[in-house]
Amino acid sequence: MAEQFYQYSDPDRITGAVDALSAMTEHDRPFTRLVFSDEYKAARAWLQLQFEEIGLECRTDAGGNLIGTRKAASSGEPPRKVIIGSHIDTVAAGGRFDGIAGVIAGLETVHYLNQNNITLPFDIEIIDFLGEELNVWGTSCLGSRHMAGLLNDDLLARKDQDGRQLSDEVHKAGGTGIAATAPRQDAESIIACLELHIEQSNRLEREGIDIGVVIDIPGISRYAITVTGSAGHSGTTRMQERKDALVTASHIVTTIRDFALEISSQDNRHFVATIGRIEVYPNGAAIIPGQVSMILDLRASNAKSRDRFLSSLQLAFAEISSRETCEIGMDPISAASVALMDDTLRTHLANSSEELGLSHISIASGAGHDMAHMSRIAPAAMVFIPCKDGLSHCPDEFATPEAIARGSAVLTHTVLKLAGGDI
Amino acid sequence: MAEQFYQYSDPDRITGAVDALSAMTEHDRPFTRLVFSDEYKAARAWLQLQFEEIGLECRTDAGGNLIGTRKAASSGEPPRKVIIGSHIDTVAAGGRFDGIAGVIAGLETVHYLNQNNITLPFDIEIIDFLGEELNVWGTSCLGSRHMAGLLNDDLLARKDQDGRQLSDEVHKAGGTGIAATAPRQDAESIIACLELHIEQSNRLEREGIDIGVVIDIPGISRYAITVTGSAGHSGTTRMQERKDALVTASHIVTTIRDFALEISSQDNRHFVATIGRIEVYPNGAAIIPGQVSMILDLRASNAKSRDRFLSSLQLAFAEISSRETCEIGMDPISAASVALMDDTLRTHLANSSEELGLSHISIASGAGHDMAHMSRIAPAAMVFIPCKDGLSHCPDEFATPEAIARGSAVLTHTVLKLAGGDI
Repeated sequence: MAEQFYQYSDPDRITGAVDALSAMTEHDRPFTRLVFSDEYKAARAWLQLQFEEIGLECRTDAGGNLIGTRKAASSGEPPRKVIIGSHIDTVAAGGRFDGIAGVIAGLETVHYLNQNNITLPFDIEIIDFLGEELNVWGTSCLGSRHMAGLLNDDLLARKDQDGRQLSDEVHKAGGTGIAATAPRQDAESIIACLELHIEQSNRLEREGIDIGVVIDIPGISRYAITVTGSAGHSGTTRMQERKDALVTASHIVTTIRDFALEISSQDNRHFVATIGRIEVYPNGAAIIPGQVSMILDLRASNAKSRDRFLSSLQLAFAEISSRETCEIGMDPISAASVALMDDTLRTHLANSSEELGLSHISIASGAGHDMAHMSRIAPAAMVFIPCKDGLSHCPDEFATPEAIARGSAVLTHTVLKLAGGDI
Repeated sequence: MAEQFYQYSDPDRITGAVDALSAMTEHDRPFTRLVFSDEYKAARAWLQLQFEEIGLECRTDAGGNLIGTRKAASSGEPPRKVIIGSHIDTVAAGGRFDGIAGVIAGLETVHYLNQNNITLPFDIEIIDFLGEELNVWGTSCLGSRHMAGLLNDDLLARKDQDGRQLSDEVHKAGGTGIAATAPRQDAESIIACLELHIEQSNRLEREGIDIGVVIDIPGISRYAITVTGSAGHSGTTRMQERKDALVTASHIVTTIRDFALEISSQDNRHFVATIGRIEVYPNGAAIIPGQVSMILDLRASNAKSRDRFLSSLQLAFAEISSRETCEIGMDPISAASVALMDDTLRTHLANSSEELGLSHISIASGAGHDMAHMSRIAPAAMVFIPCKDGLSHCPDEFATPEAIARGSAVLTHTVLKLAGGDI
């Protein structure tokens, strides 16, 4: 029974797909396939070919999502549908599996259905959601937000440093570039949204578990923090007379880390806070920094912990600002509440794992995912698979093809369960 | 007697020249005229026209310095010469006066000599020294270093992030792109090098003094500091498991400031230390920073203070590195010892100020200048003029045309003194 998942999924085919997508990267910064980049366009063209080769009907929807549909045998109008999806964009210098594994898992399900001539009573949509990773416009999950009716005009009107407006980029990627203030019209007919993803942490690996059935996806809040000091000559401005924005920003960075460490040590629910992006102006070796911009990325499973953290931070900022004679501003960029995965689908995923002889646990997600947005409009659920040392968003990110095959088998098995006696 | 400096210099003409040069900037980042940039080339072309209009013979030397020569009435071989020079490049988002004022002062001296049909027993060379400001190759004072025989192969072989090699850029700017390991051949015949510069601090303004006669230029040491942690997903990597290079770098920034503040408070000689430039990799909002590079800019009039600072820093780095489980590296980029200005020239400058009815003091420089390098091969001296609020290396940098005219008059008067009875 141990290896019966192989009937559902082919590790060699998975490796081939991972390698093909990995090759489409910024070559001097592997693995980088930013949304809207030339590498991204190439990867989507490649993916569309894969969709077509296995008989999927391809289209790009209003939100720029690439959708391959395997039609139901016979169906009502609108047809019921099961979505299997994830994303193929990466962060800068990211990995080869985050997102990609989930899209490849969708292909594996279709391969299985085709090979076994199975017709289903619902459409299967394999979706490559547009730009899931955080982008230069300060938002993430472009495609799933749009499909859920959550990509508004404010977000689409944002411009990057080069003046590129987000709506124009979505438009060029095949979407309308127009805000979605309501879910897709046929949302009622979606009976399940499923996503496979690498865990991006090390619990499954540490405990030797094949499958994590996700309980919830944490609320992610992002804030723009700006520090305004006074630029000046690094040689002539006395230490006592400086308003060094980078010194102030450094106190902010260490304070955020210290508070987050304290809260996460006290609270056994997920809590992390990170400054990953910082821009210093003018950033010259002989110039005292006059201005610093940073993005605070805050993820909490517990809203009370988040609120406590933010209150402590406000007090600390007031003290730092006064001591360092620099102004500190903090403005929200985006916020999302905790997203609960669908109970019935979670039971199906757990039972499928069991029936396939795979070990499984319930697990909380640390990261955000497209399913967080899809869960607002339809039943959604996720499986996590182990990844090496829990590493993600870096080139060393790794999951075995067997691990992907096991997770993919659980999705396929669950799709068959959803079809029930109708097959 | 109060306004007698006006016979030597014309504030309106000075304003015209400042405005013309200021217009040649990166337009979305005033005032930026980086060495080798298109704006820099345009400014040099403009300057060459100014040189030619007032009858100077123009040439670019092996170091890429733009030199306009006003020949002596009659002279030996090689002719004796007096250099008046500074630079017209700026830092990023710098000011309109740093360097520029000194080149314009040179033009004013020639205008005066021409208008009064004065022939001198030595050549006057007005020099726009190539790239005085710290550049992306981690060095400064390209032109004066070359003229003094101090621009070596190691410096010229450096490449920037785009792969541009410094020697190629010097070559394209009209120099040979070849290292200078000896001073210019006719160095023995240089009887004086003079430079006017804005003070870049606020002492002259605060005390209401017209002229600062510079005593010395501090030793500037620069170090590349690199922090290596481990990149990872900002959502899934627990606070307790992180090796965040930016948190470590932040501790370094605040430690450097705290140590420098302490030393400069104890020691009444000039001591400043700055992290002005920082690069974070991969610098994504959802990625824990894996690597940080910074440049430490250290300026001390007292070598003992510098050594004490560096020893304390090494101890602190060991402690931070161990606590934060990140590696810290520190490598020297460049170093220069204190440069003493020539006593005889300082006396001439002070006496000239006196005779022109201008208030003057002796003053230490905080910043580096081309005269630091020229002082290694010839008698060199500088006058500082007041600038508004001591601001420099920023767009608010300001000096009145009258202040520049006063300083320029002191240089012209000193040139006449050097000619002595020979006029």
